[in-house]
Amino acid sequence: MTGPTLAVTMGDPAGIGPEIIVKAWAASRESGHPFFVVGDHDLLAGAPGAGGLKLERIASPEAAAAAFSRALPVLDLPLQQPVVAGKPSPAHAAAVIRWIETASGLALSGAIDAMVTAPIAKAPLYQAGFEFPGHTEFLGELTRGQGRDDLRGPVMMLTAQDLRTTLVTIHEPLSKVPALLTLDRIVRVARITAHALTQDFGVAKPRLAIAGLNPHAGEDGAIGREEAEIIGPACAALRRLGIDCTEPLPADSLFHASARSRYDAVVCMYHDQALIPVKMLDFWGGVNITLGLPIVRTSPDHGVAYDIAGRGLARADSLIAAIDAAAEIAARRGPRTGSRAA
Amino acid sequence: MTGPTLAVTMGDPAGIGPEIIVKAWAASRESGHPFFVVGDHDLLAGAPGAGGLKLERIASPEAAAAAFSRALPVLDLPLQQPVVAGKPSPAHAAAVIRWIETASGLALSGAIDAMVTAPIAKAPLYQAGFEFPGHTEFLGELTRGQGRDDLRGPVMMLTAQDLRTTLVTIHEPLSKVPALLTLDRIVRVARITAHALTQDFGVAKPRLAIAGLNPHAGEDGAIGREEAEIIGPACAALRRLGIDCTEPLPADSLFHASARSRYDAVVCMYHDQALIPVKMLDFWGGVNITLGLPIVRTSPDHGVAYDIAGRGLARADSLIAAIDAAAEIAARRGPRTGSRAA
Repeated sequence: MTGPTLAVTMGDPAGIGPEIIVKAWAASRESGHPFFVVGDHDLLAGAPGAGGLKLERIASPEAAAAAFSRALPVLDLPLQQPVVAGKPSPAHAAAVIRWIETASGLALSGAIDAMVTAPIAKAPLYQAGFEFPGHTEFLGELTRGQGRDDLRGPVMMLTAQDLRTTLVTIHEPLSKVPALLTLDRIVRVARITAHALTQDFGVAKPRLAIAGLNPHAGEDGAIGREEAEIIGPACAALRRLGIDCTEPLPADSLFHASARSRYDAVVCMYHDQALIPVKMLDFWGGVNITLGLPIVRTSPDHGVAYDIAGRGLARADSLIAAIDAAAEIAARRGPRTGSRAA
Repeated sequence: MTGPTLAVTMGDPAGIGPEIIVKAWAASRESGHPFFVVGDHDLLAGAPGAGGLKLERIASPEAAAAAFSRALPVLDLPLQQPVVAGKPSPAHAAAVIRWIETASGLALSGAIDAMVTAPIAKAPLYQAGFEFPGHTEFLGELTRGQGRDDLRGPVMMLTAQDLRTTLVTIHEPLSKVPALLTLDRIVRVARITAHALTQDFGVAKPRLAIAGLNPHAGEDGAIGREEAEIIGPACAALRRLGIDCTEPLPADSLFHASARSRYDAVVCMYHDQALIPVKMLDFWGGVNITLGLPIVRTSPDHGVAYDIAGRGLARADSLIAAIDAAAEIAARRGPRTGSRAA
């Protein structure tokens, strides 16, 4: 068997997850990276775009690669309730969570090299008692205590084309962002970013751009103090740690092509500061990569898209890009530390 | 005389204003829109890029068009102190302010059709007692009491390529933005935007996109309440006024090409929400247009760039685009209401 072993969790069954997985298999079966699904076999069989689809239940990850070109391999953990496309339901929450826990456990044990997660939605999971803002934080919890303590995430990276961004705050109301910016938090995210650029992206000497928070990066304190009091000192601390980084820069001047050539990643202070550029550069193909975990995890950068679920309209570009990214990172990290599949 | 009469204020004399004005004249003298400078004749004569430049002092705006192809016309209001490129000084503040006041007065009186402002910097003006965050607010004050009360700005519009954005908050620390978002403010900005789209841009039935504030536009209240409590009700109020607008939309999904085809302008909640996309689409050629004033005013979307002032490196793309935009808006508005120059 060659190449990394990848698991794709099915995500919210009422969203576009099943459809994009089936489409990603159809697009990848000839020459893409093999993967298997952790999810519900029968739901995949009825997904839009499943015409010509063959499915094959597998009993363990090592069976996936051999099956992939003839059938989409599935580690079948069935749902208990019928699914209505586009209708979220807390009845599916337990299965959705189990799929993530299963893939995460396989990755931690070394049975797979990476996991890719199809999108979930907060509301139906919250109704069932789930307490995490998203995959990223949940996987942080599932892998707690593993990996290097000083480089422990999770940190969310979002990529599109030649742009890599990481986020100091993620799914926070904008009103809460300023108070969440601390020197420690910025330094931690930036260190994990620099480490991942070397370990996972092969950048020998990473250059980080650090985004400011305020218009014009505060314009010397005239439009906000966070750059002078928090972000700037974090940059100084990073340099003392030997990390090549900028001062806090105006976010509006960081993302055009010539600016992008000057750094390997931007550390962003809030969600849309990163997501606006990522989705402008590649609306369909952006990738979400979780850094600072002992496992490799990527995902599409879009949501469950209930509005188009079940209609055959969803595009698999982002999922395919996420699978590619997971395979590349896993290959760069080399052989698993856990028990290597035969 | 054909075409609108345009004045360009010189801006901070220690910034790149003189240089980009001279370069804009060189690029426009054959086939561009004629303009004249309100500023210091001698400083322009020594600006980088002034090789081959001819200057001509004019006594009134109507002399500008005839002179333009042979010389850059200047309404000379000299500085009192020597200028060091790249070194801001409050000693120039009085002249900088006088240039703006003069052009604004000419526009209000009908002696010119539009004004274009080269960049100023806050710090040296503040040291001299100036109290406005920028041109936009200062011109709001200078034209107070004029124009339609219910459509009174100033509102900042920023444009690049096919994208037009307007700002509900402008040069505010990000931490202050959420509290500044009120239904009245959003409705006012959106109404002025819709009115300007028709009056100044020739859009018969303007379609407005309204950006949310929070990640995923709050995701039904899970990540912030402003969409549900303030921005959404503002959208409803706008529809009751007959304005075609969206619900609050996730900002990260608003700016790629296919999204841009669905609206004529986006009403943005804060500075970088608009400026990141504008500067990604056209880093060098974005234009700032002040809406809701009784006069036409545009400017480049960049600052004074002290770091490159005096070195001949500055690009005039944005100033040229601002001059073009001013000329087009003035032409669409038609004959001045004041005393028309001969």
